[in-house]
Amino acid sequence: MLEPRTITVTGAAGNIGYALLFRIASGAVFGDDTPVKLNLLEIPQGVRAAEGTAMELLDSAFPLLDSVNVFDDANKAFEASNMAFLVGARPRTAGMERADLLEANAGIFGPQGKAINDHAAEDIRVLVVGNPANTNAVIAQNAAPDVPAERFTSMLRLDQNRAIAQLAAKTDAFVRDIKNVTVWGNHSADQYPDVSYATVNGTPADELVSAEWLKDYFRPTVAKRGAAIIEARGASSAASAASAAIDHMHDWVNGTKDGEFVTVGHYSDGTHYGVPKGLSFGFPCVSVDGEYKIVDDLEINAGTRGGIEENIAALTEEYDAVKAMGFIK
Amino acid sequence: MLEPRTITVTGAAGNIGYALLFRIASGAVFGDDTPVKLNLLEIPQGVRAAEGTAMELLDSAFPLLDSVNVFDDANKAFEASNMAFLVGARPRTAGMERADLLEANAGIFGPQGKAINDHAAEDIRVLVVGNPANTNAVIAQNAAPDVPAERFTSMLRLDQNRAIAQLAAKTDAFVRDIKNVTVWGNHSADQYPDVSYATVNGTPADELVSAEWLKDYFRPTVAKRGAAIIEARGASSAASAASAAIDHMHDWVNGTKDGEFVTVGHYSDGTHYGVPKGLSFGFPCVSVDGEYKIVDDLEINAGTRGGIEENIAALTEEYDAVKAMGFIK
Repeated sequence: MLEPRTITVTGAAGNIGYALLFRIASGAVFGDDTPVKLNLLEIPQGVRAAEGTAMELLDSAFPLLDSVNVFDDANKAFEASNMAFLVGARPRTAGMERADLLEANAGIFGPQGKAINDHAAEDIRVLVVGNPANTNAVIAQNAAPDVPAERFTSMLRLDQNRAIAQLAAKTDAFVRDIKNVTVWGNHSADQYPDVSYATVNGTPADELVSAEWLKDYFRPTVAKRGAAIIEARGASSAASAASAAIDHMHDWVNGTKDGEFVTVGHYSDGTHYGVPKGLSFGFPCVSVDGEYKIVDDLEINAGTRGGIEENIAALTEEYDAVKAMGFIK
Repeated sequence: MLEPRTITVTGAAGNIGYALLFRIASGAVFGDDTPVKLNLLEIPQGVRAAEGTAMELLDSAFPLLDSVNVFDDANKAFEASNMAFLVGARPRTAGMERADLLEANAGIFGPQGKAINDHAAEDIRVLVVGNPANTNAVIAQNAAPDVPAERFTSMLRLDQNRAIAQLAAKTDAFVRDIKNVTVWGNHSADQYPDVSYATVNGTPADELVSAEWLKDYFRPTVAKRGAAIIEARGASSAASAASAAIDHMHDWVNGTKDGEFVTVGHYSDGTHYGVPKGLSFGFPCVSVDGEYKIVDDLEINAGTRGGIEENIAALTEEYDAVKAMGFIK
């Protein structure tokens, strides 16, 4: 057995947390040779339910699960943490203005970023799942000046997985035969799902599907999939979001496959594809030696360029708004 | 890649089904080399929600998931099935008599047993999770005369996992260091959790805990854990039940570890530990060559004997009741 890793999950009593924790405890992120210690963070009114989840985690007798602890104090929950899934967020409710939403979430992700800065292990990896995920990641990252900025990521993997599923259905292929689908930008309806570099059983996807299908069906279906799930289930995506979070962290730790990239909401240092410095932006990335690196040499066609620009505009607007509120220096 | 396996899950839109399906699709039962086809069975009013779950399964882009189909017809859902998780059941509601509960569930598990008999693959393995699990397994098995009786099992693994968790907490050990805890009999408050053969880091558990603790704390805590979970979570055990179902099926397919047994609600042929023929009873079992076999040579102390007898009495009463109703020939 290797050294145990400490993993913090926020919003632990919620539906995504519930779907996520048992898969982490089963070894889905670090593999069969690494015990895990789970720290569950909740707001005070969620603690009792999180304790129930903790009881069920123990009741699963996972061979790799060394401990489960429940906290309502971020400083304790991130103590010595090697990995953080920031799931809990303030959802948008009816009549809520975007500025209110950003501010409410800044009040969550700012303090959590600071707690990570002050208490987490040196190798901390952070994935922001809670929406608006990209800008929440920016807020947390700005509150953690001592942590390398690229350790704060946001989740576009769910969008990538949804895009692969749609392409697989259309081309009558298995998802395992599809490579290099990416989703640029924002985990929101602005996102730009892109099959320009994708292959299906080795054939370029562009040769298998029409530009009309991509524009009229594929991109809107992927971008609006969350609403379709709510309509069918009567509840928002939980297990598929958790599964994408597992994929994101698994690949970060264990590496991506040769010749394949995955989509990560990655810190922009201003040198990639014209995306301004400071944003957390969906980029195609490879994971090598435990680090996600942006794939830098893709040719960008006009459609993709337009999609990237729209996402830059949307995320810059959010960035400027939280900066004006004082959450970014 | 090996040949795909078809797995049927009933009650697919429920909370246990939701926790179970994503772990199956991730490869947790058959491993990384075996694609799976998922058949989701629901009652008509659950179909829409199951379709939402199916959408999320596709959206997870599991490399091993070849297909997902939703049915409200058991004959179709079990067609060519290699493995069935019978999760959906009629829960006991306030004021419901036990006879009514047994009859309502017989109306579910009888037809499902017949559909398995008529349509499943020759190597079908069945796990009944829906309560009363032991007697539901008997009913399904009786409706499937062409399937070997021992292919119908009921779930005691959750009870075993809960028992291991309690023993680990008491002895300050990791669950991975505990072996051969078993739970005899009925997945109900009658069950008899037993550490007589258990070891903790190689030390007999009996040397580490007192008879008083076993009687006053351990056995009642394990037996009533379901109620404690409901009290904490405000919802019944779902992910821990799903995890135990995964463990049960994983070990059935892949084998148990050398020198270790696990608890299975196994068909009694009347030759083991005095348990009457025809019951589905929690026994210590090993899995060898893809079959669960009852461990036959354990010495039974007076306490365990008493526990076994109580469970025989409880399960025989249920057996006789459903026989009187005509569900068993």
